[in-house]
Amino acid sequence: MRYPNGTRRKNNITNSTPTSSGKSYSNRGMTLEEDINAANTYYVSRDMAIVHKKPTPVQIVNVDYPKRSAAVIKEAYFKQASTTDYNGVYKGYHVDFEAKETKNKTSFPLSNMHEHQITHMEQVMKQKGLSFIIVRFAPLGETFLLESKYLIDYWYKQQDGGRKSIPYSIVKEKAYLIPFHFQARVDYLKAVDKVLAKLEEDVNV
Amino acid sequence: MRYPNGTRRKNNITNSTPTSSGKSYSNRGMTLEEDINAANTYYVSRDMAIVHKKPTPVQIVNVDYPKRSAAVIKEAYFKQASTTDYNGVYKGYHVDFEAKETKNKTSFPLSNMHEHQITHMEQVMKQKGLSFIIVRFAPLGETFLLESKYLIDYWYKQQDGGRKSIPYSIVKEKAYLIPFHFQARVDYLKAVDKVLAKLEEDVNV
Repeated sequence: MRYPNGTRRKNNITNSTPTSSGKSYSNRGMTLEEDINAANTYYVSRDMAIVHKKPTPVQIVNVDYPKRSAAVIKEAYFKQASTTDYNGVYKGYHVDFEAKETKNKTSFPLSNMHEHQITHMEQVMKQKGLSFIIVRFAPLGETFLLESKYLIDYWYKQQDGGRKSIPYSIVKEKAYLIPFHFQARVDYLKAVDKVLAKLEEDVNV
Repeated sequence: MRYPNGTRRKNNITNSTPTSSGKSYSNRGMTLEEDINAANTYYVSRDMAIVHKKPTPVQIVNVDYPKRSAAVIKEAYFKQASTTDYNGVYKGYHVDFEAKETKNKTSFPLSNMHEHQITHMEQVMKQKGLSFIIVRFAPLGETFLLESKYLIDYWYKQQDGGRKSIPYSIVKEKAYLIPFHFQARVDYLKAVDKVLAKLEEDVNV
């Protein structure tokens, strides 16, 4: 448990979630989160997959119930999520992923991943779910699907004193480039299909 | 879309979620939600499955960022969930379910299900996920796993003027009784195994 607190938003990484202080960086004017949500809406409309973003976990402390109008939450606090942001089902496969956007051009810094997310990814993999991250290198306009096994490998190497980021060249080699699609701007199912084809291939070897 | 608004908590049904106005009814002193959360904790600790309850969706309107202390949400509203409450992965199977507790002894009233939950269940089934509800008949101390296909069948019959509940006798016939387990009080994976065995059997016939 060597994960230090307070390292969020360092190293030019932003979580894809827009915050009240402003939208996340994106060179297309759309955040990665917006693109993924658009893809999910498109997928479900075509019966291609059903994937949802989980709501932000909030600890509710005080709620006001005015007469004849909706309940108002008057005091609540953000809780740390214990899972990744997205999950769902595609052709019988459980898919589970996190989306991250970086302004970096040469590597994906590990600093915005959390220990508990890594743990969650390992648990999903043990149950034979498809676990991955969607990484956008914003300055390059490139978005990749990287299977969690590679991320986890770098994570533990870092804990043993290794480098604090995954080189772009490794992402380029190991991950699948996610194509742009008019209706599903981040058409990640195309990349999931490649992961599945590879799994199939490995089984048949 | 004949689903009428404002029918929640009618017919002695309570959602398993405890609210600030008090805990849900349960004859064991534990809510169904607490029992399921305990089961999920047990399952993940044994690497048996990874299932989480989704956070309550909240629309955040106003957040205060005091110096040197945590951000406080000052104004927020409850949003209607667009999915069921629980999902996860078990031995490669995507599982997705809703938990409901009723004080009724003779039937499970459909009035606490929402149109969008039924839609979500249909979407999950189309993608070959395992979709079901966990129903507790509190006065009887019995908890069942009922596959969504039966629920959906009654749902559409109701829309065509049919009965507004699923008879206990039908639940008893079609659903799987969930056994009590010391560490996983609602040991629902045992019932999921029966669903899977039945699927296997149907394939091999």
